[in-house]
Amino acid sequence: MLTLYDYLDSGNGYKVRLLLAHLGRDYTLVEKDIMKGETRTPDYLAMNPNGRIPLLQLDDGSCLAESGAMLNYLGEGTPYLPNGGIERARVLQWMFFEQYSHEPPIAGARFRMRHKEQTDEVKAQIEALRAPGEAALGVMEGELAARDWFAAGRYTIADIALYAYTHVADQGGFDLAAYPAIGRWLDRVKAQPGWFPMLAPEEPGVA
Amino acid sequence: MLTLYDYLDSGNGYKVRLLLAHLGRDYTLVEKDIMKGETRTPDYLAMNPNGRIPLLQLDDGSCLAESGAMLNYLGEGTPYLPNGGIERARVLQWMFFEQYSHEPPIAGARFRMRHKEQTDEVKAQIEALRAPGEAALGVMEGELAARDWFAAGRYTIADIALYAYTHVADQGGFDLAAYPAIGRWLDRVKAQPGWFPMLAPEEPGVA
Repeated sequence: MLTLYDYLDSGNGYKVRLLLAHLGRDYTLVEKDIMKGETRTPDYLAMNPNGRIPLLQLDDGSCLAESGAMLNYLGEGTPYLPNGGIERARVLQWMFFEQYSHEPPIAGARFRMRHKEQTDEVKAQIEALRAPGEAALGVMEGELAARDWFAAGRYTIADIALYAYTHVADQGGFDLAAYPAIGRWLDRVKAQPGWFPMLAPEEPGVA
Repeated sequence: MLTLYDYLDSGNGYKVRLLLAHLGRDYTLVEKDIMKGETRTPDYLAMNPNGRIPLLQLDDGSCLAESGAMLNYLGEGTPYLPNGGIERARVLQWMFFEQYSHEPPIAGARFRMRHKEQTDEVKAQIEALRAPGEAALGVMEGELAARDWFAAGRYTIADIALYAYTHVADQGGFDLAAYPAIGRWLDRVKAQPGWFPMLAPEEPGVA
């Protein structure tokens, strides 16, 4: 059975758990508290030298890091990932956009507001993330004003990747009321079979 | 014919041009000077709302953003990208690692040293990128101490993605002498058929 090492407040981990729920796949969940350094122990670094969650351990004991790689691995051959061509490339375009332009400001502001003492330095860091975060949301809004889903005309792992931190962007101080097309898309994602809320009392599929 | 919009000092663009050279594919190159705001004009934003280079325009006029997506699109069905399974996921793991953990500090320090006035604020920004950049290089060094290539036992787009900014990391103040396994890997990449240097006087394949 698959084992997922995760910190449940992480949107990156939620992406993988959401896809596993859509797919109806069972897995073992091992929680690692990043705030207590549990991903920086020698044992954990032996599994993932980059010291991050989520981390997916396969049946043979080998580990796969990076939520984007896991979504592609688990999505292969399912409706959540096109088989190839420009549609598959478009999925990846949005997933790389998410990791480079979207997640750093939006998850970064949220993390600092939820887990850091609000010193002047931390407040300044959050303030510096405002403009790039709004820019990323603006790019999403423009896209979603023209279409229902980010790629391939259907719900894919690109939507899952962008949903995770967008739907809790308010926890980083971003006001989604300014982005009506994003709001409608969030509702569409929430209506997908198998959807469950982040930080749910009981995670689906957890053995 | 493919058209690549690019800024030649960008490692992200170099990744795509390097793969095109390996594949022996011709393309039209359109230079956009990011320092002069040429990727923020209305015409450019209509092609890429995220306002970044590189941008790949296909024969039908549609555009693909994100170098990682382009490498996967162009690499599909070639030896540079495994067909599927864990090997393909491993390629993506390293490509997402590059965009999230490696490129921001390493390319970020290089960009600020090459293109920004060295004010106290900019110097402090560069200093703050030192530790995450060294951490990313440390992860690469550990991997390359154990194997020649990042995925699938051969040179893939994961190596291309990581090579682009690693081989010019010294321009961001990182001393690669501390990373001997990375040094040997850089030599192996340089020995690949079709390799050409970043900022070459004549770009291979440019029509």
